[in-house]
Amino acid sequence: MLDTSQHPHRRYNPLTGDWILVSPHRALRPWQGQQETPEAEIRPAYDPTCYLCAGNVRANGEVNPAYPGTFVFDNDFGALQPAPHAGAVNIGGLLRAEPEAGLCRVICFSPRHDLTLPEMPVADIRGVVDVWVQEYLTLGARPDISHVQIFENKGTVMGCSNPHPHGQIWAQQTVPGEPAKEGVQQLAYLRQHGRSLLTDYLALELQEGKRIVFENEHFVVLVPYWAIWPFETLLLPRRHITSIEQLTEAEKDSFAAALQQLTIRYDNLFNISFPYSAGLHQRPTDGQEHPEWHLHMHFYPPLLRSATVRKFMVGYEMLGNPQRDITPEFSAEKLRSLPSVHYKLAAN
Amino acid sequence: MLDTSQHPHRRYNPLTGDWILVSPHRALRPWQGQQETPEAEIRPAYDPTCYLCAGNVRANGEVNPAYPGTFVFDNDFGALQPAPHAGAVNIGGLLRAEPEAGLCRVICFSPRHDLTLPEMPVADIRGVVDVWVQEYLTLGARPDISHVQIFENKGTVMGCSNPHPHGQIWAQQTVPGEPAKEGVQQLAYLRQHGRSLLTDYLALELQEGKRIVFENEHFVVLVPYWAIWPFETLLLPRRHITSIEQLTEAEKDSFAAALQQLTIRYDNLFNISFPYSAGLHQRPTDGQEHPEWHLHMHFYPPLLRSATVRKFMVGYEMLGNPQRDITPEFSAEKLRSLPSVHYKLAAN
Ligand SMILES: O=P(O)(O)O[C@H]1O[C@H](CO)[C@@H](O)[C@H](O)[C@H]1O
Ligand SMILES: O=P(O)(O)O[C@H]1O[C@H](CO)[C@@H](O)[C@H](O)[C@H]1O
Repeated sequence: MLDTSQHPHRRYNPLTGDWILVSPHRALRPWQGQQETPEAEIRPAYDPTCYLCAGNVRANGEVNPAYPGTFVFDNDFGALQPAPHAGAVNIGGLLRAEPEAGLCRVICFSPRHDLTLPEMPVADIRGVVDVWVQEYLTLGARPDISHVQIFENKGTVMGCSNPHPHGQIWAQQTVPGEPAKEGVQQLAYLRQHGRSLLTDYLALELQEGKRIVFENEHFVVLVPYWAIWPFETLLLPRRHITSIEQLTEAEKDSFAAALQQLTIRYDNLFNISFPYSAGLHQRPTDGQEHPEWHLHMHFYPPLLRSATVRKFMVGYEMLGNPQRDITPEFSAEKLRSLPSVHYKLAAN
Repeated sequence: MLDTSQHPHRRYNPLTGDWILVSPHRALRPWQGQQETPEAEIRPAYDPTCYLCAGNVRANGEVNPAYPGTFVFDNDFGALQPAPHAGAVNIGGLLRAEPEAGLCRVICFSPRHDLTLPEMPVADIRGVVDVWVQEYLTLGARPDISHVQIFENKGTVMGCSNPHPHGQIWAQQTVPGEPAKEGVQQLAYLRQHGRSLLTDYLALELQEGKRIVFENEHFVVLVPYWAIWPFETLLLPRRHITSIEQLTEAEKDSFAAALQQLTIRYDNLFNISFPYSAGLHQRPTDGQEHPEWHLHMHFYPPLLRSATVRKFMVGYEMLGNPQRDITPEFSAEKLRSLPSVHYKLAAN
């Protein structure tokens, strides 16, 4: 009989409709490949060469204000630009291009160059949540913006080029591939069952318990049944809401607390500043109601066994489909059992 | 008017149905992030500690034979296992798992520890092509194998843990996600047009010329219109054949020559052993005819601007969709104009 803790198997991701390959028996293979370099741990509270620190000059000559909490500005090298261009390419249905308009924003989480989310007080993380809500509202209200992607790349291994705590927003005219797939799946589920897909999924997970990492009054963090990254997690509200603008004041506090608790556990896993890419998925801002959408946040961390050994999504994964070695249940158990106090504060 | 060489735009991938974001104007942003370490260039022809060199002992105690050309064996830490397990999980359609059977094989391309494909004579690369054909046939003939994924991860940055020239095969019971998507798209195209999608696409590319990297009598290498990696290429036969078993002797020689020419140009781009993941996509071995399939090979190299600066597919790419900076046309022009002789042989 299939034992998902031991035998190779495939798992289904109902949010996207994709499958992944799980190879639990492979967790023990030796690793002789590339080693990652963990982030330098000691940073000054202010770095005169950092383009995100308060008072410093950016690439375009602008001077950052002396901001006390968060600070948001247009990305000096944005991948999207607001000015739309007319026209499209379509040669035989095979060479197709369309103009895309949008805006890229940068959000500094704190003026402190030496902090990261897990080291910030919940009240300050709440400040970050407030900026996300405000940016989602402002950008989403624009007629030329149908999707607001809020995300954070943390750590050099995730392509982050500046350790100053910050995230990004890419807001654009069309809905990108991943949220588009999730929208289709969620809509089909809502039509069939009359409840949001993640409402029913969360109920199942709370019943089973074994993939839960953390819960508070309004939010739950779990390793999804279909996680592809070794320590991937999903952070979601208990209540079915379609976007962050519907969060109550109490829920925003709970959200900030859950963010802190999850990222503290991540740092405590290998006693390093834990790298990841994370971001919110929520209702497109195309003017429709989208009752099928259930707000959630994905965390995709690359590390596998230690501070220096990562999972590579390469040949088979690029050409076939994602593959993982350790099971989601194993990862959840690990993360759940870690202390809720950051290792830097716990020391001594 | 939309100028795809300058303005942000989306391009459509007719092989998968996905879109990607292209931001040509972003090519000039400064890079202050992680730097890659190129492979060490000097390696011995035989390494006593390498588990792929002839005569050496592998992890499971087996001794490699004194092979003169290629050498194939079952992966000692395969992600798939032949023994199938009965049963499946399905809880509310949301927690779903299925057993998966399969085999993982390793193919040494040469006994020489110090070579890579671009440094091998065409006759020896032809030997690799022959092994691919044979493995595809043998594995594909098994009733429990519906898909044979042949691929190579080259370079530590692509998760390759041993520089000895080798590739892998993951053969399995079901068709993985990427080829499944390509099958659906190719079938729809064949039904509508009566020709394979890649036949018509190749004709358009040969007409336009600007994305062609290399061509010989039977094969063409190009940077696809929808490429996501900076120097991604597609290698495809001019003739519509569904798998490598249909290649004629002359076509196999041409395939080997095209592989050599492409990988030489890759190495010559930054004068290093150029990392990539590459693999064949072809007809599933599920017993159906699949006339919609058109054999091709994808090359996904991570490097962007230099031997040390790579493209990161992170936050936006993981949560939204892939994004690229330089255009496919720019990359094709670069690769096309490089010398056809390997830099190591050209020197002096
Ligand atoms: O070649 P290895 O060591 O088996 O493993 C490598 O390729 C596999 C298939 O693409 C990936 O799953 C691994 O993450 C990668 O490190
Ligand atoms: O933060 P940056 O420097 O703009 O860029 C980083 O995040 C972007 C969005 O995920 C990616 O496209 C880049 O490859 C990555 O280096």
